[in-house]
Amino acid sequence: MQYHFNGFRPGDPEIAEIAAGRSENQQDLPDKVDVLIVGCGPAGLTLAAQLSAFPEISTRIVERKDGPLEKGQADGVSCRSMEMFNAFGFADKVLKQGYWVNETTFWKPDPQQPDRIIRNGRVQDVEDGLSEMPHMILNQARVHDMYLEVMRNSPSRLVPDYSLAFADLVIDEDADDYPVLVTLERQDEGHVGETLTVRARYVVGCDGARSGVRKAIGRELLGDSANQAWGVMDVLPSTDFPDIRCKTLIQSANEGNIIIIPREGGFLTRLYIEMDKLASGERVANRAITVDQLIAAAQRIMKPHSFEVKDVVWWSVYEIGQRLTDKFDDVPEELVGQRQPRVFIAGDACHTHSPKAGQGMNVSMGDAFNLGWKLVSVLTGRSAPEILHSYSAERQAVAQDLINFDREWSRIISERPAEDDGANGEEPKFQRYFIQHGRYTAGMSVTYQPSGLVGTSEHQSLAAGFPIGERFHSAPVIRVADAKPMEIGHTILADARWHLYAFAGEGDDGGDGSAVRALCEFLENARNSPLRVYTPANGAVDSVIDVRAIFQRGFRDLSIEKMPSLLLPKKGKFCLTDYEKIFAPDLKSGRDIFSMRGIDRKNGAIVIVRPDQYVAHVLPLDAHSEISAFFGGFLLPVA
Amino acid sequence: MQYHFNGFRPGDPEIAEIAAGRSENQQDLPDKVDVLIVGCGPAGLTLAAQLSAFPEISTRIVERKDGPLEKGQADGVSCRSMEMFNAFGFADKVLKQGYWVNETTFWKPDPQQPDRIIRNGRVQDVEDGLSEMPHMILNQARVHDMYLEVMRNSPSRLVPDYSLAFADLVIDEDADDYPVLVTLERQDEGHVGETLTVRARYVVGCDGARSGVRKAIGRELLGDSANQAWGVMDVLPSTDFPDIRCKTLIQSANEGNIIIIPREGGFLTRLYIEMDKLASGERVANRAITVDQLIAAAQRIMKPHSFEVKDVVWWSVYEIGQRLTDKFDDVPEELVGQRQPRVFIAGDACHTHSPKAGQGMNVSMGDAFNLGWKLVSVLTGRSAPEILHSYSAERQAVAQDLINFDREWSRIISERPAEDDGANGEEPKFQRYFIQHGRYTAGMSVTYQPSGLVGTSEHQSLAAGFPIGERFHSAPVIRVADAKPMEIGHTILADARWHLYAFAGEGDDGGDGSAVRALCEFLENARNSPLRVYTPANGAVDSVIDVRAIFQRGFRDLSIEKMPSLLLPKKGKFCLTDYEKIFAPDLKSGRDIFSMRGIDRKNGAIVIVRPDQYVAHVLPLDAHSEISAFFGGFLLPVA
Ligand SMILES: Cc1cc2nc3c(=O)[nH]c(=O)nc-3n(C[C@H](O)[C@H](O)[C@H](O)COP(=O)(O)OP(=O)(O)OC[C@H]3O[C@@H](n4cnc5c(N)ncnc54)[C@H](O)[C@@H]3O)c2cc1C
Ligand SMILES: Cc1cc2nc3c(=O)[nH]c(=O)nc-3n(C[C@H](O)[C@H](O)[C@H](O)COP(=O)(O)OP(=O)(O)OC[C@H]3O[C@@H](n4cnc5c(N)ncnc54)[C@H](O)[C@@H]3O)c2cc1C
Repeated sequence: MQYHFNGFRPGDPEIAEIAAGRSENQQDLPDKVDVLIVGCGPAGLTLAAQLSAFPEISTRIVERKDGPLEKGQADGVSCRSMEMFNAFGFADKVLKQGYWVNETTFWKPDPQQPDRIIRNGRVQDVEDGLSEMPHMILNQARVHDMYLEVMRNSPSRLVPDYSLAFADLVIDEDADDYPVLVTLERQDEGHVGETLTVRARYVVGCDGARSGVRKAIGRELLGDSANQAWGVMDVLPSTDFPDIRCKTLIQSANEGNIIIIPREGGFLTRLYIEMDKLASGERVANRAITVDQLIAAAQRIMKPHSFEVKDVVWWSVYEIGQRLTDKFDDVPEELVGQRQPRVFIAGDACHTHSPKAGQGMNVSMGDAFNLGWKLVSVLTGRSAPEILHSYSAERQAVAQDLINFDREWSRIISERPAEDDGANGEEPKFQRYFIQHGRYTAGMSVTYQPSGLVGTSEHQSLAAGFPIGERFHSAPVIRVADAKPMEIGHTILADARWHLYAFAGEGDDGGDGSAVRALCEFLENARNSPLRVYTPANGAVDSVIDVRAIFQRGFRDLSIEKMPSLLLPKKGKFCLTDYEKIFAPDLKSGRDIFSMRGIDRKNGAIVIVRPDQYVAHVLPLDAHSEISAFFGGFLLPVA
Repeated sequence: MQYHFNGFRPGDPEIAEIAAGRSENQQDLPDKVDVLIVGCGPAGLTLAAQLSAFPEISTRIVERKDGPLEKGQADGVSCRSMEMFNAFGFADKVLKQGYWVNETTFWKPDPQQPDRIIRNGRVQDVEDGLSEMPHMILNQARVHDMYLEVMRNSPSRLVPDYSLAFADLVIDEDADDYPVLVTLERQDEGHVGETLTVRARYVVGCDGARSGVRKAIGRELLGDSANQAWGVMDVLPSTDFPDIRCKTLIQSANEGNIIIIPREGGFLTRLYIEMDKLASGERVANRAITVDQLIAAAQRIMKPHSFEVKDVVWWSVYEIGQRLTDKFDDVPEELVGQRQPRVFIAGDACHTHSPKAGQGMNVSMGDAFNLGWKLVSVLTGRSAPEILHSYSAERQAVAQDLINFDREWSRIISERPAEDDGANGEEPKFQRYFIQHGRYTAGMSVTYQPSGLVGTSEHQSLAAGFPIGERFHSAPVIRVADAKPMEIGHTILADARWHLYAFAGEGDDGGDGSAVRALCEFLENARNSPLRVYTPANGAVDSVIDVRAIFQRGFRDLSIEKMPSLLLPKKGKFCLTDYEKIFAPDLKSGRDIFSMRGIDRKNGAIVIVRPDQYVAHVLPLDAHSEISAFFGGFLLPVA
């Protein structure tokens, strides 16, 4: 963490200085806002947390309910979401409070006695090296709490406006500004049904599967009608089932299937229990399922093991319905070239998943993280509004992909295991599929296609381990100035900046004549350098594009004195040197980032990373004009 | 973290449920308290944080100043203190916010041009494997904040009583109870000088070097009168000195010496600057040193490097004075057999150090951590008050040892380097000494001598890497029930419990006939088992002594089903199973705790650990009656 550089501030550095014009007690909803977010689920809160770092943008978030969620709903936090949480600053808290998914075990009917289950296999839940972060389980409500804390501690001091429901919106294309007129309905006692209106530049509907915002822009969730119901319960169990603290998939012979998700705190356990097949078109709400039936089903499936429920914390019956909206904003496909989007939808408002692949919360947060920095870029004048089209384009494809995966996964789980599945020492189908698709569940399957924001693959071979369009895969490094072992990916915060990592070629120590120096000199001085063209006069040199270099030698063999000045930039009102731009591989641990990520040792490489941690481009170190051209595709020159 | 086991509680699990009879807004100081702590420095706050976990003990802490510290004073957090912070639950926050000391560099006069300094060496600051925690630097004020948060979030909701100064105390040996009568003086505006009195069972003076509590019990700080002054300043510098972000010791030829301590946040820097020799008896306060003089001195010493100060955050002039009190409680040596202590002193009240060895804050916290659990044990009726004598006995010896080290270290730093020091590729004296004494600076030199609370070394060879009397040196393990990789040492929290770690012998899987099972059966069932004799009827089986086992096989080769019931204890109002008692070595990483800590593979071992993380005893797995005898030495049977 960097702080104190504009002078010492006592107290918790994670509580930002309040911005001018903001108040510790947020004022009533104003008539006009830049961004109005509807819904305090994972999507809405991710977006609000991102925007709250920019007090120059006026953001508000409304929620129909009268306060924060306390329990229930989703709980799976993928490795990818953990990486994002790290950018928001609370991954460490999730690591501390949450459950770590280390192993997944598989149970099937005992071939000798098919009414009894036996363990059929166990696998490490996340393959080695997939992420520096583990797969975690934590109550969705706690994830909300952490975002709410980020918002409250931000310079904006943003808090939700509870008990305020979205009712409708109208887009006035002719309005000069604030073209979206939103009608909200109060839900607080004594005022229910009273309406108020707000004008917004942008509205983001994060209002869940029954999204009113989606309806207001005339979009629909399309897809499977559910024909399979799963009961879910968070309980405090007492059992002799030995894998109760591992994620476990149980297929019984005749009683259905269970997924066990151990939960935070060491005792709480979630169970997903397959209910009977639903007659086509039959809805869950019509079936009078009780929690006692869920418990009884679990007891039947887990035989011969005892399973007693001491306390039921939350339960629900959930139907599988993988559904998707064709577009995530208000602009019809055919008008994309003519109009900019003003209204977006994110999360369950655009796609729903079965709970079992653990995607709902993760994909929803991913949507918002994709949209957040784009809204920041447009509203701060860094980018033209055209980039906002990329949100729907990128995320709709991701959602489609994940829904396909989810559909298949749900089917496999619900399938009755073949008699001989897993016989002859062969891995059972379940387990095979699970291992094959680990990248999906971990959130690593997302790949953005080439576009204005994502380059093409001509130079991919210079950095084979950083595939363009995929998330920037962190690796260990040593920070040269203070020899700190750390993760290079953790230099990316949720601050809407772009990142340019220069991986030095062989022998390059930043000194005279080196390619890294030439690059830095170009970036610092050339008239067409993106740093010069796009960085506002009053902003730090790294406020739009953050440049860092990673050299091949050990940190003791590098000299700060020899480094180009761009890698020791002066910042803040005292013009203090920022010493956190120069890195070396962690040679002592044997985990050399150049080898781990397939960097071309001879030539080095430039890896450009988007604010949402996705690799935007790979270029040769001397591709100076290509760098300019790339950033020129979406950034606006400062006036 | 374990939580929710008495039912689900929404919100942050680090905020404990408030205890019956406590209020969210702490009431006025009552007439009687169990423990009155004087002074909100690191010692007082460590003790208060420890006691606040026990709402059945009424604790208050008074502080003369009107609010928490904001800056200045100490900043070095040793590895050992980090281990303790982990037990209090905030090590992760310090890791995130603080500066990590990774390297220390050494500079000396250039033999060619003695008025210029050159780098003479660099060493890794902490030797590999010394602790799972790094050496950290963080503003003492932030450490205070973290303790204050622990107190506020505890079931006691303890907050300091500010603006209240200790004035005097009287011990009434004939009083039935609450024998210490304390007079306090209000310091708040409009009430200055008004006094009030409180009766306490115990008073702990954590009131710093000029301790009034110390004077009240007739003790004195004895030792060197200072003859060497060091200026200290926390500044935001701009410099071309390349090691400004490493801990650095500079010896100049004629201008004196500097220690550079990089600070949290990436920019702030502390400098200790050697001032002129003081005439004997001359006091710092008499010398009109200014911060400009300190800056000028730094500039002279650091030549040829530029050194400009952009902002001075805090500065002070500090004199070296290693002083010590002969005893840390109110009982004269000759009355130890006849009287129990009622008044203690801790921290700077009993010993002062030069700031340069970075001991002040660390040793003070160590004192309080040693005393805390003993007071808890006595006040909850687990132990007789006799154990309180061990506080002074143990900590006075530690302080003496550290003061000897500190004295030598200060001398070496202040010595003018010999012309040929570090010549011929030989390490300079500085550096040699620094490496040799790394265990001191890391806080690992503390060794408690055999006593009622520390066993003798007959069986030390069974666990050679856990020296009796030293702190329990954590190592990686895998928790069997959920395959979580973790540190065995992190099973110890600041909750005043004892720990018994059973390291299994070869082939032992906890099954029938195994030594671990026999031990567990003894502990669970035998009439003379310390678990049966000392655990209150309404307490969980692990509430006084926490038993855990570490087996030699990999976690996949162990079965929960085979384990003795003591290792799967039932807890809380729902009698839920605690799955966190059984461990395996981390064989995949190659870091096998049995090898790392020299456990006798054939026979295994028992390692008994005190509530303050020190190894109390090493015994054979079958030494059942020795276990009983050991605990019988200081625990009281429950009624
Ligand atoms: C009852 C329930 C149970 C679930 N159980 C599971 C589960 O077991 N496992 C799993 O993986 N996933 C589960 N999910 C799904 C998971 O919670 C979602 O995928 C995830 O929360 C999606 O995040 P989101 O932000 O898009 O929407 P949501 O979390 O649904 O958030 C939408 C928010 O918008 C608010 N809102 C809705 N309409 C309006 C309006 N008109 N005005 C203002 N605010 C409005 C809602 O109150 C809500 O707070 C469950 C969801 C629900 C609703
Ligand atoms: C001004 C100053 C500068 C220091 N600088 C450094 C440094 O540069 N480097 C370094 O390593 N260490 C430094 N130290 C030492 C380091 O801070 C101490 O070693 C450490 O704080 C000791 O902790 P403690 O809790 O024992 O006492 P302190 O931290 O001294 O805490 C004692 C507390 O008791 C309060 N108090 C005192 N008398 C009374 C009373 N009668 N009634 C109620 N409250 C009372 C005080 O206000 C204070 O809050 C400095 C200390 C001081 C005071």
